Amino acid sequence: MEYMFSTAMAALKPSAIREILKVTADKEVISFAAGNPAPETFPVTQLQALACRVLETQSSQALQYGVTEGYAPLRQSIADRLQTKYQIGRDFDSTIVVSGAQQGIELTAKVLCNPGDTVLCEDPSFIGALNSFRAHGLQLHGLRMDEQGLRPDALEHALQTVPRVKILYTIPTHQNPTGLTMSAERRPQILALCQQYGVYIIEDNPYGDLSFDAVPPPAIKTGDTEGIVIYVGSFSKIIAPGIRLGYVCAPAPIVDKIVVAKQAADVHSNLFFQMIVHAYMTENDIDAHIQNCCDLYRTKRDQMVTLSRRYLSSHAEVYEPKGGLFLWCVLRNEQDSTEFCRKAAAQKVAVVPGSAFLADTTAKTAGFRLNFSLPTPAQIDKGMAILGSIIS
Amino acid sequence: MEYMFSTAMAALKPSAIREILKVTADKEVISFAAGNPAPETFPVTQLQALACRVLETQSSQALQYGVTEGYAPLRQSIADRLQTKYQIGRDFDSTIVVSGAQQGIELTAKVLCNPGDTVLCEDPSFIGALNSFRAHGLQLHGLRMDEQGLRPDALEHALQTVPRVKILYTIPTHQNPTGLTMSAERRPQILALCQQYGVYIIEDNPYGDLSFDAVPPPAIKTGDTEGIVIYVGSFSKIIAPGIRLGYVCAPAPIVDKIVVAKQAADVHSNLFFQMIVHAYMTENDIDAHIQNCCDLYRTKRDQMVTLSRRYLSSHAEVYEPKGGLFLWCVLRNEQDSTEFCRKAAAQKVAVVPGSAFLADTTAKTAGFRLNFSLPTPAQIDKGMAILGSIIS
Repeated sequence: MEYMFSTAMAALKPSAIREILKVTADKEVISFAAGNPAPETFPVTQLQALACRVLETQSSQALQYGVTEGYAPLRQSIADRLQTKYQIGRDFDSTIVVSGAQQGIELTAKVLCNPGDTVLCEDPSFIGALNSFRAHGLQLHGLRMDEQGLRPDALEHALQTVPRVKILYTIPTHQNPTGLTMSAERRPQILALCQQYGVYIIEDNPYGDLSFDAVPPPAIKTGDTEGIVIYVGSFSKIIAPGIRLGYVCAPAPIVDKIVVAKQAADVHSNLFFQMIVHAYMTENDIDAHIQNCCDLYRTKRDQMVTLSRRYLSSHAEVYEPKGGLFLWCVLRNEQDSTEFCRKAAAQKVAVVPGSAFLADTTAKTAGFRLNFSLPTPAQIDKGMAILGSIIS
Repeated sequence: MEYMFSTAMAALKPSAIREILKVTADKEVISFAAGNPAPETFPVTQLQALACRVLETQSSQALQYGVTEGYAPLRQSIADRLQTKYQIGRDFDSTIVVSGAQQGIELTAKVLCNPGDTVLCEDPSFIGALNSFRAHGLQLHGLRMDEQGLRPDALEHALQTVPRVKILYTIPTHQNPTGLTMSAERRPQILALCQQYGVYIIEDNPYGDLSFDAVPPPAIKTGDTEGIVIYVGSFSKIIAPGIRLGYVCAPAPIVDKIVVAKQAADVHSNLFFQMIVHAYMTENDIDAHIQNCCDLYRTKRDQMVTLSRRYLSSHAEVYEPKGGLFLWCVLRNEQDSTEFCRKAAAQKVAVVPGSAFLADTTAKTAGFRLNFSLPTPAQIDKGMAILGSIIS
């Protein structure tokens, strides 16, 4: 039988990264392709103790249906942390727990955009978000970046010329895939432009806590006096991704509508882990845990940067990230990194070609993305040497 | 600030049940309004042992990102059970784990339907599914039922006259909210009509395992030689709803597209509970557990049916369910049950007015829904007596 799919979904293919990751199921492959945190950062002992306690003392609640907004104490502890540590959230804002930041982005697009509307984004950007926009039949328009992140002139030009722009999607801090961080000067400029043109901002910040060298500039959301910023956070990189928990802090009318959309999407996020994360946040020193994660990742980042200078920098520009999980490289004298990535895969090193992250799926780029959080130091040593032998 | 929402979401309001359930937060209220399983049916001891084991021996996997299709051993154990116990699934079918049956329904609508397409459904039907269709901008067209379930003549008439019909959504067994079960004769007729008119069927079967009196007729999916039936199942009613796990068994091209949609929606369902449910299914006697659930619910059903005969049957028609969680009553000589439900709430008994379940949100019905799984026997006694005093 021939199946006909919806217009938006018919056009959407499985992510290129997904296909690459299938190659990495081969144990011999060194994968720099994933976006996974290192499993040694998972606070297993604490989660285990809390899991036992929750099932012993609160099983009737933890295993029953919960409210769509999320477990009330967790919502409060998230709101408190955002407020006291990051000055995020005003009287008009509210918080909802979602099944990973991905869901927060997807539901925001669903409640704010009609099919055919346009989302602006950094080019390249996070493929998961781009695909959630595509799945709703939205148009994507990519914006140029430089070493200070998204360029205000590119944003302004798009706001003036691109039709039906509803949302700017941005990852201002340790951007995926480039690792770039939007400068402190740029952030209010970007916000002011969106305000001026009546465009919402989805500020996606999964990596902000993973800052290895310095405290990053304040979130765009901190300046959101008008209520146009939807701030999306995640527990995937600082606790564990398998628990599928993230959150959205946004003006209450938007959160209320996201609640309705989420109710129709998955009723609520799994309550057991919401209770555990709340207990973890209130009973443990989560900042000390994040510091430990940063210490591990800083070492890996330094190792990969050093080796990329040694092996790659003669033929590629290397963007050294100040945090996050990724290192971005751009081949010199090339238009397209696909062939390089194919050769790497043939030699059992998986890296992601930059074209996977472009707003225009037919475009090419000489960039490619390397992940340093998941591979072991030995794998980084060996894999970078192999990439060096291919590039030269 | 005035917020403008997408056309589909602007029209969608929080479910009426949700609003009623807020009243039931009052401890004095006897709630017949929920759809929750009884917490005493949750296999807490086994889940606790398995949770400890998974975190002790497989934490790196259980807490890490997983594949969108779901944990492979769980997919297999679901497919095996569907095949051997229910003769569901053919060579062309595939299985995906989803974050509750609700997500299975929502993603199926998303991949098959464009905004403006029509979904046919029993009238009344499950509000969560109806809202997931509405959230995609789909039109709903309700079909009449009788004591044998959905009427083939009503279906045929709709297939001939309603524009852009893409899907028939049906709960053939212990339907929510009516408790009606589609007869064995009707099922192939319904399937043949949909085949003839090129319309997909979403067969939602969360209650099939909760059959108290007899084995229900085979699922519509068992006759699906052409690959038009998307079968949706759930662990919410037989293990626990808080874990948010369900599954879809459908032709592989449809499942493949659902995988792409799910990747954009929430990446994957929480892996920890997928591993636990797989272990539970393979190491425990899940059928014995389901039998225990049925024994408990049968007693509660019998109690509520007996009391409804005593207190309600003079003024209402009572539909005695053969399974599931709900009892459906229809007031005689009334067009609208809303006033009755309001009076009940004023006397601290929460029941859901049938209008909440109608395809047409402006329509009224004399029906109302009572849940017997969650209230205690004492609450059923007291609550039914109160309803009796109001009705007469």
